[in-house]
Amino acid sequence: MLEQLKAEVLAANLALPAHHLVTFTWGNVSAVDRERGLMVIKPSGVEYEAMTAEDMVVVEIATGRVVEGAKKPSSDTPTHLALYRRYPEIGGIVHTHSRHATIWSQAGRDLPAWGTTHADYFYGAIPCTRRMTPEEIAADYEYQTGEVIVQTFESRGLNPSDIPAVLVYSHGPFAWGKNAAEAVHNAVVLEECACMGLFSQQLTPQLPEMQQELLDKHYLRKHGANAYYGQGSS
Amino acid sequence: MLEQLKAEVLAANLALPAHHLVTFTWGNVSAVDRERGLMVIKPSGVEYEAMTAEDMVVVEIATGRVVEGAKKPSSDTPTHLALYRRYPEIGGIVHTHSRHATIWSQAGRDLPAWGTTHADYFYGAIPCTRRMTPEEIAADYEYQTGEVIVQTFESRGLNPSDIPAVLVYSHGPFAWGKNAAEAVHNAVVLEECACMGLFSQQLTPQLPEMQQELLDKHYLRKHGANAYYGQGSS
Amino acid sequence: MLEQLKAEVLAANLALPAHHLVTFTWGNVSAVDRERGLMVIKPSGVEYEAMTAEDMVVVEIATGRVVEGAKKPSSDTPTHLALYRRYPEIGGIVHTHSRHATIWSQAGRDLPAWGTTHADYFYGAIPCTRRMTPEEIAADYEYQTGEVIVQTFESRGLNPSDIPAVLVYSHGPFAWGKNAAEAVHNAVVLEECACMGLFSQQLTPQLPEMQQELLDKHYLRKHGANAYYGQGSS
Amino acid sequence: MLEQLKAEVLAANLALPAHHLVTFTWGNVSAVDRERGLMVIKPSGVEYEAMTAEDMVVVEIATGRVVEGAKKPSSDTPTHLALYRRYPEIGGIVHTHSRHATIWSQAGRDLPAWGTTHADYFYGAIPCTRRMTPEEIAADYEYQTGEVIVQTFESRGLNPSDIPAVLVYSHGPFAWGKNAAEAVHNAVVLEECACMGLFSQQLTPQLPEMQQELLDKHYLRKHGANAYYGQGSS
Repeated sequence: MLEQLKAEVLAANLALPAHHLVTFTWGNVSAVDRERGLMVIKPSGVEYEAMTAEDMVVVEIATGRVVEGAKKPSSDTPTHLALYRRYPEIGGIVHTHSRHATIWSQAGRDLPAWGTTHADYFYGAIPCTRRMTPEEIAADYEYQTGEVIVQTFESRGLNPSDIPAVLVYSHGPFAWGKNAAEAVHNAVVLEECACMGLFSQQLTPQLPEMQQELLDKHYLRKHGANAYYGQGSS
Repeated sequence: MLEQLKAEVLAANLALPAHHLVTFTWGNVSAVDRERGLMVIKPSGVEYEAMTAEDMVVVEIATGRVVEGAKKPSSDTPTHLALYRRYPEIGGIVHTHSRHATIWSQAGRDLPAWGTTHADYFYGAIPCTRRMTPEEIAADYEYQTGEVIVQTFESRGLNPSDIPAVLVYSHGPFAWGKNAAEAVHNAVVLEECACMGLFSQQLTPQLPEMQQELLDKHYLRKHGANAYYGQGSS
Repeated sequence: MLEQLKAEVLAANLALPAHHLVTFTWGNVSAVDRERGLMVIKPSGVEYEAMTAEDMVVVEIATGRVVEGAKKPSSDTPTHLALYRRYPEIGGIVHTHSRHATIWSQAGRDLPAWGTTHADYFYGAIPCTRRMTPEEIAADYEYQTGEVIVQTFESRGLNPSDIPAVLVYSHGPFAWGKNAAEAVHNAVVLEECACMGLFSQQLTPQLPEMQQELLDKHYLRKHGANAYYGQGSS
Repeated sequence: MLEQLKAEVLAANLALPAHHLVTFTWGNVSAVDRERGLMVIKPSGVEYEAMTAEDMVVVEIATGRVVEGAKKPSSDTPTHLALYRRYPEIGGIVHTHSRHATIWSQAGRDLPAWGTTHADYFYGAIPCTRRMTPEEIAADYEYQTGEVIVQTFESRGLNPSDIPAVLVYSHGPFAWGKNAAEAVHNAVVLEECACMGLFSQQLTPQLPEMQQELLDKHYLRKHGANAYYGQGSS
């Protein structure tokens, strides 16, 4: 079942080492079939070189039950499920420990919008979550990780379609999109912006966020009804 | 038409990922045929792997009208046109979001001439433009980007042949040359100098610009009537 | 003799340049056959490209005597022996001058546990040894290097199975594991954490160690009786 | 003539891009035949991909006269000659603008001996030359560059066999050795130490030089009469 979606999820997982976003097996991508209420995700701890579409695991979004697949799903499965349940607009999710995004996560800091590279994809700063409580860590940790992400977006009034990524405190980034490929694309952009932001601030320590007008211009020329970038039909 | 120029522009665009100057489609190169008053430029949002000479778009410099090509030209087309119109000595232009040059752009700082690597190609600091006004952003943004570059050079009395690059504030670099290949060459040098400058200043925070005599020596041994570097006929 | 172990040690040594952990011949991996009391180690100063399983040198752990091999063993052989003698749980050891781990060694600083990447493999900070005394350097230097590592773990009450790496002051890292492959794996993780830690602290200069609960959660979900990560039989 | 030496010099020049020490044509290697009093050096401004042994230029050390070769020798030829004339123990020289060594040159700082990686090859700090005077720059600049290097070693009582590299102020590194291959090897080590030193100091801003005893131990175990590293005949 879901052969096409499994192929897309496999391809998106293989794109992680190709874009230098992962070391060993440190990353996972999933995508969903909303009509059937199913998620396809990478198995846990399997090497990218050996991975096949058959290894992808099918999980029921509502229950977390594995409905197909011989292997255990990624240990981050509950985090993915929490996001898919809360945000019906998300079609694909990626988690990595990509170097510079993880640096911001470890430092516990939001990544400000500091240039048009960022503004072309993210409509404002990438938030860093709060520290998790001992209770959240002790209980169903991976699911609570998703809940803390949701809480971060809700408490700040952020729209996950406009800010398709988050930095989990002391951990690393999650990114998403309308499908698996777009999620990976956003993860690549996040990594690049995280690197450039680190050193932009080194050069100008009190660097303010970019002008709102410039943020609006770049984000909106690529997103929404008035977009004019690329070979779209407009 | 312009088959030779299209091939050159394609090759120069493909040189961007080869030199690690671009991620995804974040970059574009153009070149001009001055006699015919035409510019050839990369199409908007097309992936480098799939690009062919046929995809290059021909635009009339004076009017901005597309005169050949099935695809939309790069969204940065008006910036290129502004520079070609103002500076007849420019034959090729490249725009990238290359990592270290973009870091300086995001930090809003000129890149000082701090060594002979810089002096071999640029006769002084690479300027960073001022912030654009809300009006400039709201109106014909991409064209105004070109105008702000021109204004930066004019207000500081800089010659674009001697300083063949600029850092656009909160955005990234443009570089140019007598043709597309030289523009890419200068973009590579800028990226390297931007990286070395970042960390030279880390080691020596109050680093002064290099000696004028050394800047003169290196720039002039490679440029102008008394150049003696390379296999030139002199 | 020990053909299988030699093949494993060769493969682990070749993994060092593949993971960009070594320049030239700056690195060595060994592994042991505990039943026979023998260690297999890379020869000294031989290039990776030309190395064969036959070049591996067999050394008696108890005496340091070469029992097979036409070449001299790595000059770091006594350091490896000191660790194998003291810690029967170690099956493989790797030494490199990998860039970021060496930076922490040169800076003479412990690498704190600053994120889940670290916590997935190391149950606390990676210690940096003290400076060696002139007497230790003058005498049997390489063996004393091993002794100082042992002293670092003992004086701090650290368990080498839980912290499978060390930073030798002014020198570089050693990492280990239950076999040669795991030792290399840990060396790769150390290098990545060393890089991320360097810049995490740049972003947040007074960065505290990560929460103990999160360290526990990540380390223990991959190690020990209650581990649930990967495709294990549990 | 000198076919063997030309082949060595070509191979050493091609090793520069292989070791990521050069961008474009920014680097050159030479070597000498002391009996005949001749130097073989890379031609000026020729791309590495297209270079052949035939392109190498033969120059008389005593006079600087080109005695064979259709192309102009590297513009840095007089610098190489100044070093060969003054130091008969040098058999090969390399000049690059390798990124981190150039950063230290641009910052105008000596690279301290901060670890055993450095101590295995360099018996103390790598000196940075003083600024050149306007007169030195205006006259025979490239030859004066060599003279300033010599002056740096003489005024500080340094032995070029023990410290086989220098950082030229506002410019970049030169390294040397008993032949072209060893010169390149030293240039690679310098680049690595320059990178590690930059960030070692970031972690520990007041980092002192390494212990003299450790510097002695590492340098002398690889150099001189009592060396015991590698597969030497001792």
